[in-house]
Amino acid sequence: MDSDLKPMDAEQLREYGHQMVDFIADYYNNIESFPVLSQVKPGYLRELLPDSAPTSPEKFEDVLNDIREKIIPGLAHWQSPGFFAYYPSNSSTAGFLGEMVMSGFNVVGFSWIASPAATELEVIVLDWLAKILKLPTQFLSSGQGGGVIQGTSSEAVLVVLLAARDKALRNIGRNSVSKLVVYASDQTHSSLQKACQIAGIYTENVRVIKTSSSSNYSFDPDLLREKILEDVSFGLHPFFLCSTFGTTSSAAVDPFDALGKICREHRMWFHIDAAYAGNACICPEYRHYLEGVEEADSFGMNAHKWLLTTFDCSLLWVKHGSDLIKSLSTNPEYLKNKASQAGQVVDFKDWQIPLGRRFRSLKLWMVLRLYGVETLQNHIRNHVGLAHRFLQHVNSDPRFEVVARQMFSLVCFRLRPPPLSQDNGDKLNSDLLHAVNGTGKAFVSHTVLSGRFVLRLAIGATLTEDRHVDNTWRLIRDQAGLLLGTQLA
Amino acid sequence: MDSDLKPMDAEQLREYGHQMVDFIADYYNNIESFPVLSQVKPGYLRELLPDSAPTSPEKFEDVLNDIREKIIPGLAHWQSPGFFAYYPSNSSTAGFLGEMVMSGFNVVGFSWIASPAATELEVIVLDWLAKILKLPTQFLSSGQGGGVIQGTSSEAVLVVLLAARDKALRNIGRNSVSKLVVYASDQTHSSLQKACQIAGIYTENVRVIKTSSSSNYSFDPDLLREKILEDVSFGLHPFFLCSTFGTTSSAAVDPFDALGKICREHRMWFHIDAAYAGNACICPEYRHYLEGVEEADSFGMNAHKWLLTTFDCSLLWVKHGSDLIKSLSTNPEYLKNKASQAGQVVDFKDWQIPLGRRFRSLKLWMVLRLYGVETLQNHIRNHVGLAHRFLQHVNSDPRFEVVARQMFSLVCFRLRPPPLSQDNGDKLNSDLLHAVNGTGKAFVSHTVLSGRFVLRLAIGATLTEDRHVDNTWRLIRDQAGLLLGTQLA
Repeated sequence: MDSDLKPMDAEQLREYGHQMVDFIADYYNNIESFPVLSQVKPGYLRELLPDSAPTSPEKFEDVLNDIREKIIPGLAHWQSPGFFAYYPSNSSTAGFLGEMVMSGFNVVGFSWIASPAATELEVIVLDWLAKILKLPTQFLSSGQGGGVIQGTSSEAVLVVLLAARDKALRNIGRNSVSKLVVYASDQTHSSLQKACQIAGIYTENVRVIKTSSSSNYSFDPDLLREKILEDVSFGLHPFFLCSTFGTTSSAAVDPFDALGKICREHRMWFHIDAAYAGNACICPEYRHYLEGVEEADSFGMNAHKWLLTTFDCSLLWVKHGSDLIKSLSTNPEYLKNKASQAGQVVDFKDWQIPLGRRFRSLKLWMVLRLYGVETLQNHIRNHVGLAHRFLQHVNSDPRFEVVARQMFSLVCFRLRPPPLSQDNGDKLNSDLLHAVNGTGKAFVSHTVLSGRFVLRLAIGATLTEDRHVDNTWRLIRDQAGLLLGTQLA
Repeated sequence: MDSDLKPMDAEQLREYGHQMVDFIADYYNNIESFPVLSQVKPGYLRELLPDSAPTSPEKFEDVLNDIREKIIPGLAHWQSPGFFAYYPSNSSTAGFLGEMVMSGFNVVGFSWIASPAATELEVIVLDWLAKILKLPTQFLSSGQGGGVIQGTSSEAVLVVLLAARDKALRNIGRNSVSKLVVYASDQTHSSLQKACQIAGIYTENVRVIKTSSSSNYSFDPDLLREKILEDVSFGLHPFFLCSTFGTTSSAAVDPFDALGKICREHRMWFHIDAAYAGNACICPEYRHYLEGVEEADSFGMNAHKWLLTTFDCSLLWVKHGSDLIKSLSTNPEYLKNKASQAGQVVDFKDWQIPLGRRFRSLKLWMVLRLYGVETLQNHIRNHVGLAHRFLQHVNSDPRFEVVARQMFSLVCFRLRPPPLSQDNGDKLNSDLLHAVNGTGKAFVSHTVLSGRFVLRLAIGATLTEDRHVDNTWRLIRDQAGLLLGTQLA
């Protein structure tokens, strides 16, 4: 580290790269020593960093020290075995290696010509995964459809919503956007609402069909059909349904077969958002939940959530790639090339919002090859088993109740309010959440189900083992005891 | 490498990570030996890879060999010193190290709470860069505005277009989308067209103002004013102008001061897309081109293009963050938290299309610190100097002509058609392009200016030096000689 860092120098990259590998390996060795949820206060970093960038180079060692002392305390440690919030964004050695080589090449394969391997590997690897998931053959690249890697599910649902919007407007006239109606349930992810805002769908034309605990918060096809008929009778135009495989709050699975038939009747676009739980379908024993996927026009699943692939890697399959292309294609002179003009290749720029794109299929390919399907299946099964272990803990303590059926690796539960308590339990459980997260030993998040504040424990960090689940249960139980003690005092 | 790879194991990550660092360092050592533009044929990879994913783990060594033998031949080597196509997406040792640590942590900081450091570092580093660029203080986080990192310029222009659309519709009524008019020049990047498609702006309401060689292809404020007045007289509603600092075809700079005043008069949103050339404004001698930025509502620049930051890292500054939030915010229960509810923090999920986001500010911060502003300025100046060197080569050969003024590190040129040739030069230059790129020694791209097919040589790869520019010139000159010889024969 005698000389300044050159913009690019292979031997310096080697030297510093090795140091960085050690830094990251050490981070993983120490990961359990950090508070899972950062305990910093808003604005903490401003006080620790200078107001402006340095004029001259600083030392790598100093930067690493700052990362250690100033950045790490401000992280939520998503890869910590004590991370149970939201849904996982789990990483792996293979995913990390994949990111390394991807950013090492740093190619921007917007069109086939801009890096043929980037496009072709993506097509191949998404076919691989479609086969593992036993998706209908129309989702394979051999037909009119195929898979594409988006950054996130938000982008996946947005591009299919746009395709569906434009398809509908081509039929009924583009001045009719006010007639377009989207259907979702009250459990559908907020990314659909955002996509509707972006696409200019009228807020009051976004139907939010109520779910109930009796159907475990899954979509009610009868209510859907009723609502559609009502909308049609008002002269409105139903065009898009977003269903979910593993809802955010409780990992509920919608009845795809019934929903799909309704969509077919009304010529609506049928999307399945399987961001988190879709990953479980690599195991044959979970595949039955996906029955009806044959009816879908599009299917999205995030390999970055639960398939050991570093964020971001959101997979989207469509039956007709041309639907996306019609909405998202542009063809400026400076990007024209013989392969594209001849129609010999797919240009994924026309299947997504951005022009530029990273070579994300490389990491997914490495994950699939370095682990193989069996290891990935075991990974999923292991997490589902850990969730079941936690469920049993909750069931063993009568002060707690399980709030929804355990689906996949998610457990929704709550502390029952003591008899005669004025609180219906919402404040109690909110206090419990903050008490648990405030210890820094685990990070759990919440939702509301049937109007009640509920804790969610989602297993999914790669490093989580029995002992972490057991310790987290004890932590929750002990904090609950303290809270109940306080309340009784 | 005796045992199978575990999903995550710090010591395996260390062992394989070191091997991967060596693999990438070796790649950079050998980068000049690869054809810059891949010479593979469409479908090449399908024949080299199996039809389905492996059931059992494969060896890391085998994967590395496949990358070497099957993937690398299918890359366009964007980091090669012979890469002169499009605009650069240049990388650096610091950028690579930044990607490593970012993907090592693999946090998803959609909200402040989900990793406070990710949000706070982004705010701080975008303030740093705003100061380096001498952006107006309204673009700093201390006021109503601030910076945010998007994936690409396409997303940057989309989010501001959406904010402007919704602002306009709040004024004139949401049923009036058919009245909204967007203004651009015929040199504006295609990402604006795509953003308009997404936002539902009517195609015939996207005004494409003609530019000419006499003004070096910059935006003509007089034509803009005329068109706006005409549109207003027809009852239409002008609401958005996309101007460019460094157009894609010729790196032209629009007259921001004049354009901005027109926008102010008509209460239009004024965006400056400085994706590539904006980076040059870190050098005081180029800053004057940005005069008038005070008038802008938003300003975008891609650090991943020309500031040694690995793709993706697209910077966007706005004067009023609330404009973005009004269009892009959602507030589902499962993401609620005390810091957000109290309004103490910024949640960047509401400034962008996706929910999830990578910790991209970490790499930008590392680039700024490990190089310092002076090294980055030298990097820009060096590339501009190399472009000038190439320009002099072109000027020295009467068979060639320079087609637009050299701006920044881009040279637009063409081979003159021989006297009495039936070709106006378009076929000749297209043939020259393919001949040059077909050698694999350089990758140059093209555009059309004033109706003529033109070659573009954009300097920007981190490793490009005098000798690469000289060799590329000789290559072009020699290929031209062969073509002209053929033509004369």
